[in-house]
Amino acid sequence: MRIGLCGGGQLAQMLSLAGHPLGLRCVAYAQDAGDPACAVGAFELGGWDDDDALDRFAARVDLVTFEFENVPRRAVERLAARVPVRPSIEALDTAADRVSEKSLFRRLGIGTAPFEAVDSQADLVRALASIGLPAVLKTRRMGYDGKGQKVLRAPGDVSSAFAELGGHPCILEGFVPFRRELSVVGVRGLNGEVAVYPLFENRHRDGVLRVSTSPALCSPSLEAEAHRAMRAVLEALDYVGVLAVELFEIEGGLLANEMAPRVHNSAHLTSEGHETSQFENHLRAVAGWPLGSTRPLGHAGMVNLLGAVPDAATGSGAGSVLAVEGAHVHLYGKAPRPGRKVGHVTVRAADAAARDAALARVVALLGA
Amino acid sequence: MRIGLCGGGQLAQMLSLAGHPLGLRCVAYAQDAGDPACAVGAFELGGWDDDDALDRFAARVDLVTFEFENVPRRAVERLAARVPVRPSIEALDTAADRVSEKSLFRRLGIGTAPFEAVDSQADLVRALASIGLPAVLKTRRMGYDGKGQKVLRAPGDVSSAFAELGGHPCILEGFVPFRRELSVVGVRGLNGEVAVYPLFENRHRDGVLRVSTSPALCSPSLEAEAHRAMRAVLEALDYVGVLAVELFEIEGGLLANEMAPRVHNSAHLTSEGHETSQFENHLRAVAGWPLGSTRPLGHAGMVNLLGAVPDAATGSGAGSVLAVEGAHVHLYGKAPRPGRKVGHVTVRAADAAARDAALARVVALLGA
Repeated sequence: MRIGLCGGGQLAQMLSLAGHPLGLRCVAYAQDAGDPACAVGAFELGGWDDDDALDRFAARVDLVTFEFENVPRRAVERLAARVPVRPSIEALDTAADRVSEKSLFRRLGIGTAPFEAVDSQADLVRALASIGLPAVLKTRRMGYDGKGQKVLRAPGDVSSAFAELGGHPCILEGFVPFRRELSVVGVRGLNGEVAVYPLFENRHRDGVLRVSTSPALCSPSLEAEAHRAMRAVLEALDYVGVLAVELFEIEGGLLANEMAPRVHNSAHLTSEGHETSQFENHLRAVAGWPLGSTRPLGHAGMVNLLGAVPDAATGSGAGSVLAVEGAHVHLYGKAPRPGRKVGHVTVRAADAAARDAALARVVALLGA
Repeated sequence: MRIGLCGGGQLAQMLSLAGHPLGLRCVAYAQDAGDPACAVGAFELGGWDDDDALDRFAARVDLVTFEFENVPRRAVERLAARVPVRPSIEALDTAADRVSEKSLFRRLGIGTAPFEAVDSQADLVRALASIGLPAVLKTRRMGYDGKGQKVLRAPGDVSSAFAELGGHPCILEGFVPFRRELSVVGVRGLNGEVAVYPLFENRHRDGVLRVSTSPALCSPSLEAEAHRAMRAVLEALDYVGVLAVELFEIEGGLLANEMAPRVHNSAHLTSEGHETSQFENHLRAVAGWPLGSTRPLGHAGMVNLLGAVPDAATGSGAGSVLAVEGAHVHLYGKAPRPGRKVGHVTVRAADAAARDAALARVVALLGA
């Protein structure tokens, strides 16, 4: 079976690598032959508006899935007219729009921060009257890693905010004092089978994920609440594949922040940390195969490598993280650029204390 | 860093897949673009007598290593004149010749079955006088998976035996009543660092490995004896990379049967069963990097897929092994052929009883 991956980045790369042993050959639809996925498997080059390339891509695969949610709808529709597209266009649409996804959470009884759709400066003023300051204005679409958003702290921040985000449709969200950031990652098969990973605990800096650990230390009731939310979203969207929901832990429970209809950075550590990686499970799901166990293999953590690969992340560097017991390096082969995700390092240990010690050592060696 | 792999089969394929996340790009020297390794990374096509192709291969890589021990010496020398070759020619030579490897074991005080070099029918008759019947006559070189050997049970088997094996230099080995077959797999870095995996227990049928499990249930003293033997061989050969030694457990200890200077089928389960796979550790070693931990992650087992990939080894087959908790499928993408190794399935579980139950279920589903 051949699986088309929309996108040629590191997520497509890791999906492609996970597919080989299963006999699933991935074909990445990439912009450039130097993209990470092109180094590890077949690919088709083209843009989202290149109908001929999209058709060639569709002709080479049995189904199409995604490494990111912002593929233009027209391109997805063109592919969907030719081969099955998993998850569905409707699921992608919901996840690609902050108002749609939060409205879905609300409809399913999943807590969210207060929010209002904002399509104009007048809408913004109206929304602020109910939500109050501080608040955060975000574009409804195309935002990621802290991009496309603006924090409004004082009345003076308000007048130019909508224009500064380009006049695009926005969402205004109330500020929520949260204890910590978590994520829940689940997978649903073609036949409705569902598997959910233990919770991930995430630390961001400047809007970008730096460190994740799993299983997150939390009460069984908190984990159950997150798993219920995940299952509700998967069912509501008749979802196929891996889905991630970013969560805030607040006094008394969880709020859902946003979802990603794809494999997710916070679950990269499942490669070492869990019985079946999110990459393998996504492929199994979209292929219509049985899902793999999400059992944790002890305790795992992950550190993102941003900008450039530090010497310590290679085996030849002095003080290499490879000498740390249980450390595993994943490099994407991307050219360095400030803030760019170029790799990650995971650690795996028998207990949380050993994991945390190894993680601290890795962070120190990387200077991360 | 670019690592040249002599061979394009499944071992080269799994080495290449293990290299990608580490930023180690493998180039396989293969005979055919349809070989397993060519599907997952760069390759150079050529035969062992094609000097131009060997030179092109050497020019593309920083060092050369091997997926099998029977590369003609002339080809290895040509490569070694251009780039580092790890393990060394001397180590390959020792392992490629049954008399040399057994002589090394004997010199290091490692037990072996009684053996004699046999270069003629007259040698065979002389050797039988000291070793007795039953015995097994094997070609000194190029034997694997039970090929190139003949069991001598009765005096009538003797007269034609040497000629039947082609008149090649042979070894006569005494028959040893053993309890079970084990293997010890270790790795030595460029700086002399050594790591050894827990013992593997192996079940063969018709000379071909069918099932391995690890950690083998055995006394600490038996494991220590095997680890001592492994360390002695690694040191004696100034070895770099993964080395496997096949062992017989007998009343009162171990006998070394043969060694393989490469990653080994019995340790394929290290992909899931141990902190660092044999494939990653081999690459780390030949690259001159720190070795990874050989800690077991619970209990693991492996079943080889021979001949053709059964439906049950794919996700779409009814009764797929992928539905078995902790089962992982590795397919090589090889055309089916009777007896050919086309893949393997591993299982991983928290304890030996759960592992054995999962393994039995996998074997039943595969009809293996």
